[in-house]
Amino acid sequence: MRKYAAILGNLGNTCDRFCRGYKDNPSSLEMLKQAGRIDGISGIELVGTWDIHSGNVKEMKNAIDSLGFECVSIIPDLFADRIWRSGTISAKDCNVRRKAMDYLRIMCGIAETMNCRLINLWPGQDGYDYLFQGNYLDERNYLIENIALLADEFPHLRFALEYKVKEPRTHSYLARMADTLLVCLQTGKDNVGVTIDTGHAFIGGENVAESVVLAYQAGDRLFHMHFNDNYKAWDDDMIVGSVHSVEYIEMLYWLDECNYSGWFSMDQYPYREDAASAIQESINWLKYFDDLLAANRSRLRDTVKEGNAVTTSKLLRSIIKG
Amino acid sequence: MRKYAAILGNLGNTCDRFCRGYKDNPSSLEMLKQAGRIDGISGIELVGTWDIHSGNVKEMKNAIDSLGFECVSIIPDLFADRIWRSGTISAKDCNVRRKAMDYLRIMCGIAETMNCRLINLWPGQDGYDYLFQGNYLDERNYLIENIALLADEFPHLRFALEYKVKEPRTHSYLARMADTLLVCLQTGKDNVGVTIDTGHAFIGGENVAESVVLAYQAGDRLFHMHFNDNYKAWDDDMIVGSVHSVEYIEMLYWLDECNYSGWFSMDQYPYREDAASAIQESINWLKYFDDLLAANRSRLRDTVKEGNAVTTSKLLRSIIKG
Amino acid sequence: MRKYAAILGNLGNTCDRFCRGYKDNPSSLEMLKQAGRIDGISGIELVGTWDIHSGNVKEMKNAIDSLGFECVSIIPDLFADRIWRSGTISAKDCNVRRKAMDYLRIMCGIAETMNCRLINLWPGQDGYDYLFQGNYLDERNYLIENIALLADEFPHLRFALEYKVKEPRTHSYLARMADTLLVCLQTGKDNVGVTIDTGHAFIGGENVAESVVLAYQAGDRLFHMHFNDNYKAWDDDMIVGSVHSVEYIEMLYWLDECNYSGWFSMDQYPYREDAASAIQESINWLKYFDDLLAANRSRLRDTVKEGNAVTTSKLLRSIIKG
Amino acid sequence: MRKYAAILGNLGNTCDRFCRGYKDNPSSLEMLKQAGRIDGISGIELVGTWDIHSGNVKEMKNAIDSLGFECVSIIPDLFADRIWRSGTISAKDCNVRRKAMDYLRIMCGIAETMNCRLINLWPGQDGYDYLFQGNYLDERNYLIENIALLADEFPHLRFALEYKVKEPRTHSYLARMADTLLVCLQTGKDNVGVTIDTGHAFIGGENVAESVVLAYQAGDRLFHMHFNDNYKAWDDDMIVGSVHSVEYIEMLYWLDECNYSGWFSMDQYPYREDAASAIQESINWLKYFDDLLAANRSRLRDTVKEGNAVTTSKLLRSIIKG
Repeated sequence: MRKYAAILGNLGNTCDRFCRGYKDNPSSLEMLKQAGRIDGISGIELVGTWDIHSGNVKEMKNAIDSLGFECVSIIPDLFADRIWRSGTISAKDCNVRRKAMDYLRIMCGIAETMNCRLINLWPGQDGYDYLFQGNYLDERNYLIENIALLADEFPHLRFALEYKVKEPRTHSYLARMADTLLVCLQTGKDNVGVTIDTGHAFIGGENVAESVVLAYQAGDRLFHMHFNDNYKAWDDDMIVGSVHSVEYIEMLYWLDECNYSGWFSMDQYPYREDAASAIQESINWLKYFDDLLAANRSRLRDTVKEGNAVTTSKLLRSIIKG
Repeated sequence: MRKYAAILGNLGNTCDRFCRGYKDNPSSLEMLKQAGRIDGISGIELVGTWDIHSGNVKEMKNAIDSLGFECVSIIPDLFADRIWRSGTISAKDCNVRRKAMDYLRIMCGIAETMNCRLINLWPGQDGYDYLFQGNYLDERNYLIENIALLADEFPHLRFALEYKVKEPRTHSYLARMADTLLVCLQTGKDNVGVTIDTGHAFIGGENVAESVVLAYQAGDRLFHMHFNDNYKAWDDDMIVGSVHSVEYIEMLYWLDECNYSGWFSMDQYPYREDAASAIQESINWLKYFDDLLAANRSRLRDTVKEGNAVTTSKLLRSIIKG
Repeated sequence: MRKYAAILGNLGNTCDRFCRGYKDNPSSLEMLKQAGRIDGISGIELVGTWDIHSGNVKEMKNAIDSLGFECVSIIPDLFADRIWRSGTISAKDCNVRRKAMDYLRIMCGIAETMNCRLINLWPGQDGYDYLFQGNYLDERNYLIENIALLADEFPHLRFALEYKVKEPRTHSYLARMADTLLVCLQTGKDNVGVTIDTGHAFIGGENVAESVVLAYQAGDRLFHMHFNDNYKAWDDDMIVGSVHSVEYIEMLYWLDECNYSGWFSMDQYPYREDAASAIQESINWLKYFDDLLAANRSRLRDTVKEGNAVTTSKLLRSIIKG
Repeated sequence: MRKYAAILGNLGNTCDRFCRGYKDNPSSLEMLKQAGRIDGISGIELVGTWDIHSGNVKEMKNAIDSLGFECVSIIPDLFADRIWRSGTISAKDCNVRRKAMDYLRIMCGIAETMNCRLINLWPGQDGYDYLFQGNYLDERNYLIENIALLADEFPHLRFALEYKVKEPRTHSYLARMADTLLVCLQTGKDNVGVTIDTGHAFIGGENVAESVVLAYQAGDRLFHMHFNDNYKAWDDDMIVGSVHSVEYIEMLYWLDECNYSGWFSMDQYPYREDAASAIQESINWLKYFDDLLAANRSRLRDTVKEGNAVTTSKLLRSIIKG
C-alpha cells in the first residue's frame, strides 16, 4: 500500500529569478488546510525555518495531527539564506560550516519533537559554479564528516541525502545516485541514505529504475522518494506523467522489486498552476500507473527476464490499452 | 486516412563503429518481401545506390508493383561513400560538389522512371566537425544554390530536405526545422520542402508538434515524415512509443490541424531486434495514438485553446485510460 | 573598433527561486556609477520599468550623458510582472496582448526621448510549459503580427529579438537564431532583427559563429550582441571565457567576416560575484581574444578555407602560445 | 614526468554506421610503425583479438620491444563481435557470460606474457537499450561477480574499468565514475580500479577534475587515463584541446594533487584526419597545458583555496597570456 505525501511549500508562492511571485503566498497553516483537501495524501514534509522553527513547533504539530497527517520529513533550509551562498556543511569558511551544523542540530531536535524520523538533507548550495573554484578534496571531506557527525549525534533519525546535479550551483557535490551512495558509505553510518527526486535523477541523466537498484545493492539505502516530471534538461518540477509514462511504470516496478516501503512524496513547483490541483494530478497519475502494474506484474517480470524489445513494446501497449 | 511506409534498408543489417554487423544482410528483394508482410504498409522508400541504381530500376519497379506498394521516395546516398567524407553539395572541393550533383541528377531521373515524386535529401556529411573548419558562408551558399538548381531542373519532383543536428558530422548544415526552412525559402523554389524525422527533431531539442506548425507557417513546407523514438540525446532510431507517448499524440494532432497529407514512414535502426517486428510495433503504436486522437479531437482542441496544464493532464489521463 | 556596453541590471541584486537575494540591491543611479568605473564600457542598456519609466526619463538621460555613456538599448520588462505569466504579445488573452502592446509603445516612446535607437525585445514569458498547452499556430501569429505592428509604428527604431530556448518557460517561441529569423522575415519589416545572447545560443545547441552567418545570410539581421558564458546546459550567465575560448574566437572572427558593427554588450548574472569586476573580466577576455584575432586574421582565414582539423589545431595553439 | 601512450587502433580505419570506411586499414605492425613516429609516446595499448591474440603474441612483443615501447594495457574486445550484442559478463545468457570469461582469461594470460600489467575493461555492450529490458539487479550482480572472479584469478594484474554512459547501448552499466567506483568496492578487490576516458566523462556530465578526486577518495582507484575531446553531447573522440581548455588544465592540476602516476594515453577516433598527426596534436596540447601548470601551480592552489571566480578568471588569463 503506497503512502502519499507532499512538501508543504509546494502549495505556496512560486517565483524565479525574473519574477518575484507568480502567486500570493499563503501562511503555512493555510497551506496545510489546502493539503488536507488533496485526496490520497496522509503525510506532509516541512521545510525548516519556512514552515517549522523553534517558535511554532507545537502549533504545527497540532495542526498536522488535527488533519490526521504524519510529519514525513523535515527539510532543513540550507538554500534560501544568503549566508549559505557559498555552501553550508562543505563551505570553505569554517564559521559557515559551524553555523550550518548548529542549525541542523536544531532542526534534528525539532524533528524528534514532531515524531518525525526523517531528515531530508538537500545541500543545494554545496558545490561550485566556476572551474578551479571548488577545493573538491577538502570540501567533499567536510561534507562527509559533517553528515557522519549528525548521524552519530542523532542515531534515532534517518538522514536522506537528496541529490541534484545542479541548481542553484552549476555543480552540486551531491550530484547523482552513485556519488551520493559513495558519500553514504564513506560516512560509515547506517542511518544515512538517499532521497530520489525523480526530476533530479532525470536531469542527471539517470534511468530512475536503475538508480533504485543501485541504492538497493549498496545496502538498502533508498530512504525517501520525491516525485515530479520534467523534460530531462532542467528541474521543471512538473506534474508526474505530463512528459513521461513508461519511466514511471518501470521505476514503480523496481521500487517494488527492491521492497521500497517509504513514502511517495510529491515535490513540484507549480509556477503558474493551481498548486493543490497539480499535486492531485501527480498522485492520480501514480495511482493509475500502479493499477497497471498491479494487474500485470508477472507479465512484466517475464519481459524483464527475456529482454526482447519487441515483446516488451507489445506488452506495454496491451497493458496501456487495457 | 494515414498512409504508412518504411525505408527498405531498415530491414537490413545494422552496424555501428564498433561492430561491423549485428545481423546478416539480406538482398533488397528479400527485404522487399519482408516489408510485404508488415501489416499496414503501402509504400516503400529506397536508398539510392544501395537499393536502387541504373542497373536495377526495372527489376525494383516490378518487385514494388507486384507487392502493391508505392515508391514513396528515393533517398540518394550522400553519406556512405568515402568520397563524401567532407561534404557533398556543400563540399569545399568543387569536384566533389560536381560529382554529387551528377549523382543526384541520376537519382532524380530514376525517381521519374519509378513514378516516384519525392526525393528525400539527407546531406548528412554536409557540415563540419571542428571549430574553424567550416567556411559557413560559402558552404551554406553552395548548399542553397545546388538545391535550387536541382529543384529547377526537376520541377515535377519535390525535394524534401531531411535535417538532423549531428551524426555523422558533429554539426550538420541542415540542423533543425527552422534553419532548413530558411534554406527552402532561400532557394526560391516551391518544390523544396522539409522531411521531419521525429528522432532527429527530438535530438535537436524540438517539440515536433511546434516544428510541424513552423513548416506550415512558412508556406506548407512539410513534405514528408520519418518516425522513430529515442531518449532525446542521440538518434537511437527506436520503436515509436517506446520512450515517449504524449509527444506523439500532440504531433499527430498538429499534423492534422496543419492538413498534412503526406506519408507516415518508419525510419528505424533496429540494431538488435527483428526488424520487421520492430517496424510493425511503431505502426501499431501510431495507430493506437491515432485512435485516441480520433475519439477526442474536439476535447483536445478545447484544452489547447484553454492552456490549463491541470485540465490537460486530467483529459490526457482520461483519454489514455479510455 | 569594438564598442562595449553592459546591461545596467547586471550590477544589481541577484536571486533565484530558492534565495531571494544574494546581494543588496542598489538604485539604478548607484549602478550607473558602478558601470562608470568599468574600463572600456561606453554604452548602457536599460531594463524598462526597473531602470527607466515615464517618471525618470530625464533623470536617467542626464545621468547617462554625464558619464559619457550612450543608451544602447531599452529592454522592455516583459518577464517580471505577474501579469505576463502566460505570455505578453502572444498571450491567449487578448487583454494581456493589448496591455503588452500599450506598454511596449510607452517604452518605444521613451527610447526615442533617450535618443536610443534599439529596442531589445526578449519575450521570455511567451511560450509554453506543458505539451498541448500552446496553441502554436495562433500564438505564433499574434507574436509576428504584434512585432510587425510595432515596427511599423516606430520606423526609426530597430527591434532586436532576443531568443532563448527556455527559462522562464520550458519552451520559448523565440527559441533559436533560425526560428527568430523566420519571425523577422514573416513580419516583412526591415527594422526587425535579432539579438544573439551567446549563452542563450549555447544552450540552444548553436555554434554561435554559424548563427552569426545565418543572420547575415537572411539579410544582415544581426542587430545586437549580449555576451556571457555557460556550460551549454543552462543560462548560467557567467564570465566570458570562464568555460569556453575557441568558440569566442571563432564567433569574433565571423562577426568581422559578416561586418557586424553593433555593440558588444555584457549580459551576466553574477549571483555570488562582485558584479562590476565580473563584467570587467568578460570585457578583458574579449579584448584578449580580439588581440589574438587581429594578429592572425589572414592565417585563420586560410585555415577556414582549408578545413584541415590538424592544421587548425596547430595554428590555434601557436596563436594562443603567442 | 608524464608518460604518454596511444591506443594502437586509433591509427587504423575509421567508420560509422553510415560509412564502412573513411580510410584504408593498415596492419597492426604498420600501425605500430606509425606510432613510433609520434613524438613523446613511450607506451602502446592493444585491443584484444584485433591487435593481439594467441597467434601473434611473440611477434607483437618483439615489434613493441624493438620500438622501445611499453605495452601499457590490453583492451579485450568485448564490443566488436556479434556474439556480445546483448552483453558479455553481465549478459542474461549464461553461455555468453561463460564465453566472455573464457575469452577474458585468455587475454589476461596474454597480458602476463607481454609483461603488461593492466587490463583495460570496457564492457560497452553491457547495458540495455529499451526500458524494461535490463534486469538491473541480476545483471549488475553478474558484472560485479565476474570482475571479482577475474581479479582474484589474476592477482598480479590490475583491472581498470572504463566507464561510458552510452554507445553502443543507449545505457551502459558502467556509466560514470561514481557508479563504477561502487562496482570496484563491491568486488572487494584492490586490483580493480577505474579508467577515465575524458570524453566519456564529459558526455556523462562530469567535471573530470572532480571525478579524479572521487576516485582518489574511494581508495586511490584511478588506474588509467584516456584522453580526447568532444562537445559534451556525444563521444566525438576529437583532438584534446580542440573544444575545451580550462577543463584540461584543471584535471591535470587535480591529477597531480591526487598523485596520479599512471599513463596519459590518447584515445581518439580521427574519422577524417591523419591519425598520427591528430594524436600528436593531443599530446602537444597536453604538454602545453602542463607547462602552464608547472609554472603556476602555487598560484592556482591559492585560487582554489580562495574560490573567488573573478580572481581565478584574472589568474587564468594571465597564465594563458604568459
